[in-house]
Amino acid sequence: MRDFSVDHRWLSLNTATVRKQGDLTQIIEACARHGIRAIDPWRDQVASVGLDRAVRAARDAGLELSGYCRGGMFASDAAHRGEVRDDNRRCIDEARALGAPCIVLVVGGLPQYSRPGSVVSKDIGAARAQVDEALAEMLDYAREASMPLAIEPLHPAYAADRACVNTTRQALDICDRLDPQRTGALGVALDVYHIWWDPEVLSQIARAGQERLLAFHVCDWLVPTKDILNDRGMMGDGVIEIKRLRAAVEAVGFGGYSEIEIFSNDWWGRPMDEVLKTCIARHRTVV
Amino acid sequence: MRDFSVDHRWLSLNTATVRKQGDLTQIIEACARHGIRAIDPWRDQVASVGLDRAVRAARDAGLELSGYCRGGMFASDAAHRGEVRDDNRRCIDEARALGAPCIVLVVGGLPQYSRPGSVVSKDIGAARAQVDEALAEMLDYAREASMPLAIEPLHPAYAADRACVNTTRQALDICDRLDPQRTGALGVALDVYHIWWDPEVLSQIARAGQERLLAFHVCDWLVPTKDILNDRGMMGDGVIEIKRLRAAVEAVGFGGYSEIEIFSNDWWGRPMDEVLKTCIARHRTVV
Repeated sequence: MRDFSVDHRWLSLNTATVRKQGDLTQIIEACARHGIRAIDPWRDQVASVGLDRAVRAARDAGLELSGYCRGGMFASDAAHRGEVRDDNRRCIDEARALGAPCIVLVVGGLPQYSRPGSVVSKDIGAARAQVDEALAEMLDYAREASMPLAIEPLHPAYAADRACVNTTRQALDICDRLDPQRTGALGVALDVYHIWWDPEVLSQIARAGQERLLAFHVCDWLVPTKDILNDRGMMGDGVIEIKRLRAAVEAVGFGGYSEIEIFSNDWWGRPMDEVLKTCIARHRTVV
Repeated sequence: MRDFSVDHRWLSLNTATVRKQGDLTQIIEACARHGIRAIDPWRDQVASVGLDRAVRAARDAGLELSGYCRGGMFASDAAHRGEVRDDNRRCIDEARALGAPCIVLVVGGLPQYSRPGSVVSKDIGAARAQVDEALAEMLDYAREASMPLAIEPLHPAYAADRACVNTTRQALDICDRLDPQRTGALGVALDVYHIWWDPEVLSQIARAGQERLLAFHVCDWLVPTKDILNDRGMMGDGVIEIKRLRAAVEAVGFGGYSEIEIFSNDWWGRPMDEVLKTCIARHRTVV
């Protein structure tokens, strides 16, 4: 297991962590100030400064990407399938322009939440079938673009409205169906927030192996959790055994960035430099 | 699948659903008024009116029990093991006095939340081992008392602070370890709120079979969920395919009560009679 205590060279910042404190160019400047080497930007943050400007800002600051957030939202009714396809193709084009190593996929929950305007449904099994189908279509385009796709299983608390893929096992089952040869074109993005509770998490990480482990995200689970979406904790403030999970992914060969992604009304309310300083300190001590 | 549309003979009320509107004797009177045949009372509600009085009130009203809530909270440090054992033995004695068909077990999360005062730990694997051990001890006493125990897997959102058994598979694995002969002494209580998201739920219900299915609870998952603990929905107001899940448990032979358990700041704020009328109407239409 890599020693993170001596520096923060393996820290990547998911830019949603400080989305309320500045736009993407300001976040990039702050990363440069703090010696952060990599980011994972969100599409809306890229769009609001413009793709070309985002590409230039990252390059000028010497930043790598650890991923691009996010593709997916595959569940939809028939009338929205074209939107799903075109939107995800644009995402791949943007990720290529930015030099991202992979796209993080949040697959969508029930169609009315995944693609608003879709016919209302409670059939989560049907939503899961739609995910398989639309992801297979996206994968064809992604292979041509040499852009790996990383399915992020989300915590079951988000099954209805964000992602109906809720366990590492389920994400890997999809990978096995759509990429049985383990080509590297399809894998998983594992965020400790979503997977820490899973009794199978260690065996499923072992099953994933290096070829399927495309990204590793950290934050913490707070007790109590005051908001189901925006009360994630800074690493060390909650109950997740982060080091044990990092040890597990590194044991199967993961050697990439440890990406910090914190959606938090609390941390969004603090100055950007304070947040980044805290991220660095916690990365070195508890990640 | 039984036809619930014609009457509500298979409706049981978990008394937490109206815990803010009256004490247990008042709830029992209201159930009698509304032709509700069964309840599942909570220990604190029984204690606050007194066990003898609770027994008499239920008997006088001709009410059956569909369970007794709740035993468990097994995870603890060494210093609290005696408390865990004694507390759960008292729970069994009370359940016998009340004529309950089973005790619903919420197994506890990390020890500091399960048994306050326990040494703080983030080791959910260790908590799970403690659950196995303390449950095995409780099961000995429960067998002598002929009181079945029903493990309730809780939604992963409660893994840290309420229950580290979070899937039906995990609960059934415990049953297989501690009661391999499927004697009826140990099984599961399945609440649609906790299990609806699980991609394996239907196959695990089939695996459980009639011997292991000791209780079936209903409510609904709201989008958005405003409070992680106390924003459960009235059946029909959320996204759960309740009928599909009831069909699955009945397909393997479950013939017991459909128990309504709603923790909701919203419904706790309404008059008891309105809540019960709504429960009955929804039981007949969407359960």
